[in-house]
Amino acid sequence: MTFSEKYSEYTDKINAALEKAVKTSDEITYRAMAYSLLAGGKRVRPVIVMACCEALGGDMGLALKYGCAIEMIHTYSLIHDDLPCMDNDSLRRGRPTNHMVYGEAQALLAGDGLLNLAAEHISGAEPHNAEKDIRAVAHLFGNSGAMGMIGGQADDIFAETHEATRELVEKIHHRKTGALIRAAGELGAVAAGAEADFFRDYTVHLGLAFQIRDDILDVESSAEQLGKSNSDADNNKATFVSVYGIDEAKLRLERETALALSAVEPLGEKGAFLRELADYLLKRDK
Amino acid sequence: MTFSEKYSEYTDKINAALEKAVKTSDEITYRAMAYSLLAGGKRVRPVIVMACCEALGGDMGLALKYGCAIEMIHTYSLIHDDLPCMDNDSLRRGRPTNHMVYGEAQALLAGDGLLNLAAEHISGAEPHNAEKDIRAVAHLFGNSGAMGMIGGQADDIFAETHEATRELVEKIHHRKTGALIRAAGELGAVAAGAEADFFRDYTVHLGLAFQIRDDILDVESSAEQLGKSNSDADNNKATFVSVYGIDEAKLRLERETALALSAVEPLGEKGAFLRELADYLLKRDK
Repeated sequence: MTFSEKYSEYTDKINAALEKAVKTSDEITYRAMAYSLLAGGKRVRPVIVMACCEALGGDMGLALKYGCAIEMIHTYSLIHDDLPCMDNDSLRRGRPTNHMVYGEAQALLAGDGLLNLAAEHISGAEPHNAEKDIRAVAHLFGNSGAMGMIGGQADDIFAETHEATRELVEKIHHRKTGALIRAAGELGAVAAGAEADFFRDYTVHLGLAFQIRDDILDVESSAEQLGKSNSDADNNKATFVSVYGIDEAKLRLERETALALSAVEPLGEKGAFLRELADYLLKRDK
Repeated sequence: MTFSEKYSEYTDKINAALEKAVKTSDEITYRAMAYSLLAGGKRVRPVIVMACCEALGGDMGLALKYGCAIEMIHTYSLIHDDLPCMDNDSLRRGRPTNHMVYGEAQALLAGDGLLNLAAEHISGAEPHNAEKDIRAVAHLFGNSGAMGMIGGQADDIFAETHEATRELVEKIHHRKTGALIRAAGELGAVAAGAEADFFRDYTVHLGLAFQIRDDILDVESSAEQLGKSNSDADNNKATFVSVYGIDEAKLRLERETALALSAVEPLGEKGAFLRELADYLLKRDK
């Protein structure tokens, strides 16, 4: 099976499970949640959960469940990030942002609903494993909370009105994007019954490479290619490109990717997909 | 021990545990979270968790942990409800609302952070009991999500632009306030290792009585007495008073309270505090 066939195998399962999880009601909040959750996207985080779990021969049913939860959290963070009081973006994944369609109040609730649904899903969906499920809750929400992703969003707001230093950019990315990528590795390890930090080195470098690629794409691509507003410069965002320059950002991207690759080298053949995933994220054009 | 001494014993423990849970960092998001979480309030939901657990002789350490989590969720819902795109309130618990102090973006993140912290707290704080903890997550987040409290908030938005019927008001209250009160009873039962719906009748009627009292206070008290804006009429909110009139609302309040009282009659002496709690909520003036 090629990398891209395997990737599609994962995302087909993820998309089907997400649809099942969110299409439980036709109330407006569920429709608003589904609008963003089922809008496509690369599903990078759940793919990492499943690939890490599979590399260790773990329980793929649990990995799929945890993968859905992390995608719900990622999606809620996008909805809230796009709100007028935050980045005020109108385009996301090639479509109008949630609040452009449902209004600000309902978009706020859809975001809250998806964050909440992540906890409902881990505790409520099949298969059940109390010990692993509660560890999954701890690792997912530990990374997505005020110490992790939410803290990174706050740093990001801070950076808009302060000088963007390299230290600040590294800190923001370590938390704003990095924390959920690390959580994905931890969830895969938990699903496999391994130590949660088994994939730590891999996900730290992969997360950084992923964000640097994002920053590069934001300046080199059109909104049409990206499917979202490339608003970083407009919003005076602190990015790798703005503090390091485009050439150094590209070098750093290659270095972080190389480090991610070598981190899963010891897994041999079982780490093949994880290595191809790092390559894919380095080269992606949206 | 009198009712009020017992109530204080519970709230002292709750306030100390909440302070410990949120004062783990001096970053702005934690400060914004603490600002609202430690602003006082009656702590009704965690008190119900603890009292229900104690009535069944359950694990009070778990009850305190679950009680903190439900208060975090209650507080996040207030922060988001107060935002300009929702009720646009400037006063809460006698102080400026979160966004008046920290700005809209940071208040949004503080709310997200508290919702997230509820899951972190159940999965991360002592004491641990994987089986009960994951059940607690399921019952808390099942009630606070789009099927429950968040769904009620969406109904509330809908009601502002539609005719307020009695059915709509009952539906809103059943979910917007009722769901978390029912969750409190479920968490108390889970902490005690009982069936989650053990206190179902009690909390259904208590929740309704609680909300009717709120609606009556909103028209009969000043903002100063309430410590929050009495903005229901301004916002064209559908309330018990607006659809039933003040006299019928008061009769209904007494009936719901009587039903709550009789629901815990079989507990005998062990249900004494729960009965006094229903009386207290009926007579409270803020």
